Amino acid sequence: MTYKEMPVEERKALLTQLRGDYAMFQSRGLKLDMSRGKPCTEQLDICMELLDSELITEDVKDSSGFDCRNYGVPFGVPEARALFAELLGVSAENVVVFGNSSLNVMYDLISQFWTHGTGGSAKPWSQQRAVKFLCPVPGYDRHFAILQHFGIDMINVPMTEEGPDIAALTELVADPAVKGMFCVPKYSNPTGITFSDENLRAIAALSPAAQDFRVIWDNAYCVHDLRQQGENLLSILEEAKKTGHEDYFIEVVSTSKISFAGAGISAIAASKNNLAAIQGRIAMQTIGHDKINQLRHVRYFKNADGIRRHMQKHRAILEPKFDAVLHCLERNLAGLGIASWTKPAGGYFISFDVPKNCAKKVCEMCKDAGVVLTPAGATYPKGIDPNDSNLRIAPTFPPNDELETAAELLCLCTKIVALEELR
Amino acid sequence: MTYKEMPVEERKALLTQLRGDYAMFQSRGLKLDMSRGKPCTEQLDICMELLDSELITEDVKDSSGFDCRNYGVPFGVPEARALFAELLGVSAENVVVFGNSSLNVMYDLISQFWTHGTGGSAKPWSQQRAVKFLCPVPGYDRHFAILQHFGIDMINVPMTEEGPDIAALTELVADPAVKGMFCVPKYSNPTGITFSDENLRAIAALSPAAQDFRVIWDNAYCVHDLRQQGENLLSILEEAKKTGHEDYFIEVVSTSKISFAGAGISAIAASKNNLAAIQGRIAMQTIGHDKINQLRHVRYFKNADGIRRHMQKHRAILEPKFDAVLHCLERNLAGLGIASWTKPAGGYFISFDVPKNCAKKVCEMCKDAGVVLTPAGATYPKGIDPNDSNLRIAPTFPPNDELETAAELLCLCTKIVALEELR
Repeated sequence: MTYKEMPVEERKALLTQLRGDYAMFQSRGLKLDMSRGKPCTEQLDICMELLDSELITEDVKDSSGFDCRNYGVPFGVPEARALFAELLGVSAENVVVFGNSSLNVMYDLISQFWTHGTGGSAKPWSQQRAVKFLCPVPGYDRHFAILQHFGIDMINVPMTEEGPDIAALTELVADPAVKGMFCVPKYSNPTGITFSDENLRAIAALSPAAQDFRVIWDNAYCVHDLRQQGENLLSILEEAKKTGHEDYFIEVVSTSKISFAGAGISAIAASKNNLAAIQGRIAMQTIGHDKINQLRHVRYFKNADGIRRHMQKHRAILEPKFDAVLHCLERNLAGLGIASWTKPAGGYFISFDVPKNCAKKVCEMCKDAGVVLTPAGATYPKGIDPNDSNLRIAPTFPPNDELETAAELLCLCTKIVALEELR
Repeated sequence: MTYKEMPVEERKALLTQLRGDYAMFQSRGLKLDMSRGKPCTEQLDICMELLDSELITEDVKDSSGFDCRNYGVPFGVPEARALFAELLGVSAENVVVFGNSSLNVMYDLISQFWTHGTGGSAKPWSQQRAVKFLCPVPGYDRHFAILQHFGIDMINVPMTEEGPDIAALTELVADPAVKGMFCVPKYSNPTGITFSDENLRAIAALSPAAQDFRVIWDNAYCVHDLRQQGENLLSILEEAKKTGHEDYFIEVVSTSKISFAGAGISAIAASKNNLAAIQGRIAMQTIGHDKINQLRHVRYFKNADGIRRHMQKHRAILEPKFDAVLHCLERNLAGLGIASWTKPAGGYFISFDVPKNCAKKVCEMCKDAGVVLTPAGATYPKGIDPNDSNLRIAPTFPPNDELETAAELLCLCTKIVALEELR
């Protein structure tokens, strides 16, 4: 029986009982955090051999003979470019390797387009009349924050179970002011969905009015399976090559959630034209990223299979965490008609939907009982969820026992807020 | 006797002889590089224990208890902020620690001022009518390249032996379009001079018309003495505090030429107002720089004295290199009236001046005999040395025997070009 179908008196009694349960939670003085997609300690512990000095001291030179302790090699050591190329199914010459933050790489891309344009004859975005960006929602708050920082208008595009709504995209890209889109195509943040082949091919075939249209393809979870049978994502650069739209896509990736979240390496894969513009900027910006860390990663993981094997260890740690939350949601909320949630096969998040106008209240109640969630609205541009219904659950960081407690509280708060809303 | 005083016939004979010597050089098939300020292999070798994994595995947490392998701490681990603070004589709260490239830090500063302004009420530089920058010359080519990349007008300011010409600065900063200056205040690139106390205090007392005037104080060689008795540089932030001009200065520093040129850490020291604007940008840009590398550096060097002791080892390697070049210049060119050069007590360069219109020719002749120098003109904005007379000698990277050969060739080419010019 859903809450809606429940007799009013019964609902009233239930609400009283649940409020009692909530008071109990409050008295426990919890201090739990389910707010951010951070790896947990166990995930970091499995990579400590990456720090072995022998990985570097055995040979300080990269495969081209360049001493990686010195200045130079601004586009990344050859073996690191090759490793990311193998991982992404592209050619090494289409890859540039950066420092520890793919977010920084994406910020720099938007900043470059803003001040210098995308390359070729197009004017810098800052000199164009209007600049709009497509934002599949719910999405990643830090993408939106970059766009907001540059004053770029953000247009919500609904996410379907296959990827962003193609009909909406097709219509929107006809506006020449629409300059691009941020995507997390695999195990998307926060829905966990992977763009289907059909959806991805439709994106590769989009015909934007703006020739300086650029999709930042944030493939943050490219090898981050939670289930033995991971989902498959086509290569956007390969598909875009077929449609002649290679220049519209820049793929970004990192080892932040493979090795260390604070000390990994990142990379882009892009077309020759895009690389020319990006490399031109890099040459002004730095004499090279941290090549010792690049070497360290390649020598530790060896190849894409080495990374995939390592990711199985992550899976062993994360699958039970996701299952704990999913089972808790199922146990407490299934059939009540007050919540729905995604069941991702990879990535770092569960997207959780409550009735309209309830997300903020649920978040607030959780906080008042000591459990921090990602703020309601964060999954939408400017923090404005038009329905106030989406919450992002990040199960990776908390220890398992805390996670179950936090999930129990989330369910409880959802019930209370839903019942109050029904009155 | 100078070449000018030499009888014409004697000069002619000498030129013939020197051309013969040059032909001999050419026949040797040299392939030497004195072009960039890169540390040599010996300098990199003395720091290999920085890579010991125990530095991190003994405790993955920083002094605040934060696990440095994870996301977070965007402004640097407390002990790294404290280390740079000690080194620069400022408070740790005025320091932010970044990744491996101080050039990147400086690029990002200019980019930030361009798109978002310096903070407070001033408009972004890109929205102002004109933006000019003061460039003490000769100076560092990569500073000029950043300014050029953003289309900022560059105004040459003569360097004196005390620092940039104060009279010129005073006049120029009265123009509200003059928004700042790049400086290398200690062991300047390429002159090697250190700003005198009087000069530095005069800079701290400048009254620019533009309230969003910002000096990027690139203290790249703050501990890079070549002589036992190093030169002393006052703290610009301390002096600017006294004049109430703290906001006009942002100090930048790195360990690139202390630990590894490709894999060090960098930092800024700045006022509260400047930090507010900079930290606001960083929060959009990254979830944190490489904290493992920050920890590694602090635990290896321990404190500012640890760094200073380490720099004595660099001095032992570099002093003979500089002496080799300086002795060669002295031996070959003293008293001929055709060249002058600086005798730096620190840093990475010797500034070498030849007669007007001769620098390019000297550089070209050296190249044709297999020795690459920094291109003539590189020490001036847009690569235009109005006198075509300055060359930058970078003695650190080549092995000592190659260095002497290269210096000999440089002297020879200088003589030939000067004699040809005198005809």
